[in-house]
Amino acid sequence: MDHAAATTRTAGLRGPERLEAFSDGVFAIAITLLVLEIRVPSSEDLVSNQRLVSALGSLWPSYLGYVVSFVTIGIMWANHHNLFRLVASVSHGVVVANLLLLLGVGFVPFPTALLAGTLATPSQGVGVIFYSGTFVGIAFAFNLLWYQVRHGPEVLCSDADSRAIDAITRSYRLGPPGYLIALLGALISPALGVVLLIILAGLYLLPSSTGA
Amino acid sequence: MDHAAATTRTAGLRGPERLEAFSDGVFAIAITLLVLEIRVPSSEDLVSNQRLVSALGSLWPSYLGYVVSFVTIGIMWANHHNLFRLVASVSHGVVVANLLLLLGVGFVPFPTALLAGTLATPSQGVGVIFYSGTFVGIAFAFNLLWYQVRHGPEVLCSDADSRAIDAITRSYRLGPPGYLIALLGALISPALGVVLLIILAGLYLLPSSTGA
Amino acid sequence: MDHAAATTRTAGLRGPERLEAFSDGVFAIAITLLVLEIRVPSSEDLVSNQRLVSALGSLWPSYLGYVVSFVTIGIMWANHHNLFRLVASVSHGVVVANLLLLLGVGFVPFPTALLAGTLATPSQGVGVIFYSGTFVGIAFAFNLLWYQVRHGPEVLCSDADSRAIDAITRSYRLGPPGYLIALLGALISPALGVVLLIILAGLYLLPSSTGA
Amino acid sequence: MDHAAATTRTAGLRGPERLEAFSDGVFAIAITLLVLEIRVPSSEDLVSNQRLVSALGSLWPSYLGYVVSFVTIGIMWANHHNLFRLVASVSHGVVVANLLLLLGVGFVPFPTALLAGTLATPSQGVGVIFYSGTFVGIAFAFNLLWYQVRHGPEVLCSDADSRAIDAITRSYRLGPPGYLIALLGALISPALGVVLLIILAGLYLLPSSTGA
Repeated sequence: MDHAAATTRTAGLRGPERLEAFSDGVFAIAITLLVLEIRVPSSEDLVSNQRLVSALGSLWPSYLGYVVSFVTIGIMWANHHNLFRLVASVSHGVVVANLLLLLGVGFVPFPTALLAGTLATPSQGVGVIFYSGTFVGIAFAFNLLWYQVRHGPEVLCSDADSRAIDAITRSYRLGPPGYLIALLGALISPALGVVLLIILAGLYLLPSSTGA
Repeated sequence: MDHAAATTRTAGLRGPERLEAFSDGVFAIAITLLVLEIRVPSSEDLVSNQRLVSALGSLWPSYLGYVVSFVTIGIMWANHHNLFRLVASVSHGVVVANLLLLLGVGFVPFPTALLAGTLATPSQGVGVIFYSGTFVGIAFAFNLLWYQVRHGPEVLCSDADSRAIDAITRSYRLGPPGYLIALLGALISPALGVVLLIILAGLYLLPSSTGA
Repeated sequence: MDHAAATTRTAGLRGPERLEAFSDGVFAIAITLLVLEIRVPSSEDLVSNQRLVSALGSLWPSYLGYVVSFVTIGIMWANHHNLFRLVASVSHGVVVANLLLLLGVGFVPFPTALLAGTLATPSQGVGVIFYSGTFVGIAFAFNLLWYQVRHGPEVLCSDADSRAIDAITRSYRLGPPGYLIALLGALISPALGVVLLIILAGLYLLPSSTGA
Repeated sequence: MDHAAATTRTAGLRGPERLEAFSDGVFAIAITLLVLEIRVPSSEDLVSNQRLVSALGSLWPSYLGYVVSFVTIGIMWANHHNLFRLVASVSHGVVVANLLLLLGVGFVPFPTALLAGTLATPSQGVGVIFYSGTFVGIAFAFNLLWYQVRHGPEVLCSDADSRAIDAITRSYRLGPPGYLIALLGALISPALGVVLLIILAGLYLLPSSTGA
């Protein structure tokens, strides 16, 4: 490898490519681990087709948790992807804020399993609040990361479109209050909290929120 | 990083590279999690070599589920790869349809564990139907993604070979009825359903279906 | 994206890059799932430091299985990496043979857990034979993949070094008989089989076997 | 693919790109598997919101283990990333030392689960020592890898900044004694060991230690 190539390589890696690859890995693994919370019915439910159909039906909280968390992590990945489109080089603040965000994303399988396990039990209120609270925290981490990208030295692409920047700022600002409303809704009624969580996941599927 | 390089980077990332990397991750993790459904025999089966051989033999539904799901996910990955060869840029519709497809792919370990757990029990009919039904859904998601690629604005490569496009269209159209036939076969006899699922996995291994 | 760029992209993706990325994912996940077979001692062993030290000591088969399988998968990954250095484009035969290889690699956590669970029990003979047998199969899959690479149409790089080709051929030929000897050794004595497996893993760590 | 392109490809792959991608995968999977040690409370704790809140509170050792290990693996990944910035080509020694490092990183979910399971039990001393000891080993592996990078033939980029090299050398030298102090602290008092582990994770979050 000649000197010029080595220089290019060293310089190129100050870009966010490997940070994106690592983050992509965490998002992809967290989203795929979600399925492990859906448990095959125990052997006493396998004695007849009728029993198994009934047991599979009673797993609806697990399916619901799987779908809501899968869609939410998937859209968070798309947002992360869009954010890093605008990043030219990575500062220490970006590394730390991104790690905090991944700490939240990697945690999602636990509140998802908790939500699935508590729905249809007397403790479902706590399950919905814990789940919503996790996403309040993740939404704050997204805003912190975005703050680090916007205000870090030479982090932002010099030609980043100011409308794209404003769109992300607006979109991210809605995250914490959105999940806080779901949390407060769960204080009134767990079912209301769940409905609000489903609406939030659906809203994120609308075109404007991914920017793609 | 100079202005030209930053521009290239921003523009380049509108391509599907990171969406492919994320999808590759989900396919690779789902396929590798399959092994977790094969459980080591319990300690009472470890008291002699004879007992263990017998216990390992009785795990045949787990081996079967592992092989059929592994091959099917592997071929789905190859199809996904071939489809994205023809994608020049990613629309919102592609992101959402791809997420729906990954939702199905990431779910496969559950119906696989269910199939393995119910084969050789009285509830095997439901196990085979649930398994086939999951792949009917995934086959529809593949067609939806392909529709989004073909009809989204500027998604398809401008120089995409029309024979390659027609080959994918034909191949994908066979997915939903194929798995529906396996599902209907399972209604007649679970064993017939399983045979049809094995034949489908085998068919996908033929050269024409991967296009490679 | 202009026509030339789209053409380049389509052509570039006929190369093995995405197949390598997918395979890397499966290797990396299989190697990291190995740790899940090491179980935290149950609560009755947590009542005192002495009890826990003793319980952690009795997990030696799990540590052994973890280290041997980790090193073996790691070296298999390096071999896979070296093999694909010589691949210019991917044929259908390469895709299928590679999938068969990954089927074996993804299976490794199960025989590893079985080996760890049976060592120091009366059924350890079967555990060692099953483990060795898995690697006999993987070694055959490596040879099949290599055959597809060497004999497929335009698969091999036109400038591939014939000494590198011969080195891989020689190295791969040793795999099936090597693990078969470990399997036969286990028939005589499980301990002998384990020693042979450790020697094989150690041999692969020598410089010539990775070619790097 | 013409001859020139094939040459470039073969030559390019002697660089560390695929080794980095594989390592990134192991880091990302190990960090995301950490969440599996946090278990949903059993059904008897789901009978009321009060019971569940109490049960979730008693999981504090799991949350602590998750956060400390997540941050530590995340920073180790950043260090690995910075180290490989300086690598131009990969020697056999680098492959083996990197595999040893990954062996340690992939093992982290086990001592983390052990730490979480033993904190607040009489065996917590052993839990903290085992945890610290794992990181002593990983810190030694980092130094071995760095030694292989510095002293291997043509491994280091020819234009690597000598200050960057010295900074890594200094930073890595602090790893083994740092975790050894935490281990020795745990011999005096498990709580002291835990505090030292938290301080070490926090120190790594300071700007100078990632070099980014």
